Amino acid sequence: MTLEVTSSAAAELVARLGSAVVTDPDRMLAYRRDQSLLTPDGEPSTLVRARSTDDVVVTLQIAHRHGVPVVTRGAGTGLAGGANAIDGCIVLSLERMNEILRIDEAARTATVQPGVINGDLAAAVAERGLWYVPDPGSRAISSIGGNLATNAGGTCCAKYGVTADHVARIKAVLPDGRIIHTGADTRKNVAGLNLTQVLVGSEGTLAVIVEATVRLRAQPSAASTVVASFPTTAQAIDAVLTIRQVADPCLLELMDRTTISAVNDMTRMGLDDTAGALLLVQCDGGDAAAEAARCAAACAAAGATEVYDTADPVEGEEFMQARRAALTALERRGSTLLDDLAVPVPHLPRMLAAIEETADRHDVLIGTFGHAADGNLHPTIVFDVSDAAMTARARAAFDDLVAACLALGGSITGEHGVGALKTPYMESMVGATERELMAGIKSVFDPSGILNPGRGF
Amino acid sequence: MTLEVTSSAAAELVARLGSAVVTDPDRMLAYRRDQSLLTPDGEPSTLVRARSTDDVVVTLQIAHRHGVPVVTRGAGTGLAGGANAIDGCIVLSLERMNEILRIDEAARTATVQPGVINGDLAAAVAERGLWYVPDPGSRAISSIGGNLATNAGGTCCAKYGVTADHVARIKAVLPDGRIIHTGADTRKNVAGLNLTQVLVGSEGTLAVIVEATVRLRAQPSAASTVVASFPTTAQAIDAVLTIRQVADPCLLELMDRTTISAVNDMTRMGLDDTAGALLLVQCDGGDAAAEAARCAAACAAAGATEVYDTADPVEGEEFMQARRAALTALERRGSTLLDDLAVPVPHLPRMLAAIEETADRHDVLIGTFGHAADGNLHPTIVFDVSDAAMTARARAAFDDLVAACLALGGSITGEHGVGALKTPYMESMVGATERELMAGIKSVFDPSGILNPGRGF
Repeated sequence: MTLEVTSSAAAELVARLGSAVVTDPDRMLAYRRDQSLLTPDGEPSTLVRARSTDDVVVTLQIAHRHGVPVVTRGAGTGLAGGANAIDGCIVLSLERMNEILRIDEAARTATVQPGVINGDLAAAVAERGLWYVPDPGSRAISSIGGNLATNAGGTCCAKYGVTADHVARIKAVLPDGRIIHTGADTRKNVAGLNLTQVLVGSEGTLAVIVEATVRLRAQPSAASTVVASFPTTAQAIDAVLTIRQVADPCLLELMDRTTISAVNDMTRMGLDDTAGALLLVQCDGGDAAAEAARCAAACAAAGATEVYDTADPVEGEEFMQARRAALTALERRGSTLLDDLAVPVPHLPRMLAAIEETADRHDVLIGTFGHAADGNLHPTIVFDVSDAAMTARARAAFDDLVAACLALGGSITGEHGVGALKTPYMESMVGATERELMAGIKSVFDPSGILNPGRGF
Repeated sequence: MTLEVTSSAAAELVARLGSAVVTDPDRMLAYRRDQSLLTPDGEPSTLVRARSTDDVVVTLQIAHRHGVPVVTRGAGTGLAGGANAIDGCIVLSLERMNEILRIDEAARTATVQPGVINGDLAAAVAERGLWYVPDPGSRAISSIGGNLATNAGGTCCAKYGVTADHVARIKAVLPDGRIIHTGADTRKNVAGLNLTQVLVGSEGTLAVIVEATVRLRAQPSAASTVVASFPTTAQAIDAVLTIRQVADPCLLELMDRTTISAVNDMTRMGLDDTAGALLLVQCDGGDAAAEAARCAAACAAAGATEVYDTADPVEGEEFMQARRAALTALERRGSTLLDDLAVPVPHLPRMLAAIEETADRHDVLIGTFGHAADGNLHPTIVFDVSDAAMTARARAAFDDLVAACLALGGSITGEHGVGALKTPYMESMVGATERELMAGIKSVFDPSGILNPGRGF
């Protein structure tokens, strides 16, 4: 791709889309990266701030004709560099396509543009007594389009599944400008191959999602909350295994000693920082209090030193705030390299031990928190990015964490996506034939390979 | 494909696989069709009763080299003709690959061969206090491989989702004999495109599934049951809409007047056959009785003439037997053409009205039962297959039912698959570009097009 190519594409974009197009490098700066650290990025040639599906179609047609790469982005809250610009690319921002188009109370669906912020959708449907379940930690700032592109998780997954489990239909634009509609308005549909689930989690490599119909549920009753502190992480995981037998919690979160201490320092919440690990459990539904009591008993039986059980939703929300503060609290201790590893739940003790060994071996601080019910941990390496040697140790520790996860039969990414951060590990995660199939599917959607090239798989 | 080609492929198969290969037309007869009526079939050249993944690999490699189509089948309980033989094809039966390879209690997964009968898996994991949730009506006779191939539903979907929602990993053989592994042992995994969900529901058109790891849950507490009869189907659906607001039933089934009467005749259960419709509701979990009481109240408020509520699981199971008897009872009235239509739940009254109008217009009997919570109905046309004029009316009625469903934004198949039965309707269901993408994905997996050609999409 020469400068000539990108400039003539940019000129065409300006001619067709006017003020939606930005070519000023200073103004493009904010669109160059997502929230990840140490991921590669490049210098975009053009930014398109699409206002409509038509804008997306025009952008893709021009990019397609000129062979210019397109990096689609939503709110830019990604954690794997998947929305980082590539040299010479068009950055296609969907943040202005942020309209909630329809909420169908009887059908319990909402149809939205991709730029709608997750929390805004949740609030809008809550006014009608409905519930948009997927709740990534970023829900206050991340958009539905990005949630779909990464198949975002959250704390709800313990009981209610990930973003993919709540999508009915997708409207998307192919690189050549053709519009497709996948899925159905019905809860069940087996007509043809599941294009919807191919698009979800495809990280902008196949098509540009311009509309989605998501499924809603009735609001659950208030949750009961259990907080338990344990001398060791292994005991906490023992409790998790029992809890899964006696209850169906809607949330089951873990924080380790380092995270507890960082949260305490930031929030003055007074969590038990003599503990090796803290579990936060919530149960919803009509039987919430009884379920929570069973969870509390399981914690006590597993060796918890403190178990606190409350049916008060305000108190429960305070504990949730402590959990939500985990990453921010760790970020106050330095630069962070956030990992997103998933292992089978019974292997959590071994994964947590591997994390501690890795921290020791590379002499870095690692705070770990995550979604214990799913085996999905976010070991967060805290380091000083201005210290080259320490940064190198952080990177080496990151490699070792991924290797430890793979050795336990885990996944290199549970909910953040491969992006640019995890591509080096895909070869160990996914076999050669399987990657060939993924590349083949990519070619079916994007034969000229302009959509987020090199990313995702 | 000439006779010479198929005979030389058959000879090679015999040479390599010995007694696993059958070429005697009489012995192949039982493998020629699934359980559907009025679907096209053909004369197979060879039957391979595979004993192992190796047998599957050898079969596919030989078929691939000779360009002979392969129709894979499990227990043959399909209802859309998707496993019907094609002229000259190799029928690849997986019924002998019926081993439960592993049940991992801590990880709550089971790894099985495709020929394992759904009910056998459910029973085996129940002995360990675990639950394999997907429960198609055929569960006593259908196999996991077929359940995966069609993405089978069942009565559990109201609360727990379809087969696809319970699959962690798939091992499959590509037409050229290469083996792939998709998915992960973890609950969450977003590494690369979702090949697992491409394979689920692909009806034998992409690869041959030789092993699957499915997710298990803890056994729920006993369910509470509500049975309510309504003067009209519209009132029954009113109740369904309210029930979804006040409870999260694990089962919500509908039977219309014709079905009630057929079930009564067969079982002498004494269901209320003055009713226009009957709802059967079950709630599980710790709050089951209270939830069921709310469902009962919703039924009464919607105009139910009789509402019966029981926490006795034995009594609940008796009502479930009535529901499970629906198809068999209708089959005693004549030949049946079973449909599998899904509409958004609020459109159920209009769909039910369209079914009644269709029955009148074509002067055929249609009994309807189905999964009301999912909007998934099985209108069942009862006719005399020896009466050509009546058979033609049945077919015309079938066309009209599908058309009515499409007009309501529905899906032409909720859980049975496209097979051969629904291919004529795919053009109206799925757009041209979307079908092109599906065909493209098919070519990625099966470039020579030997796997179940012409089926599925």
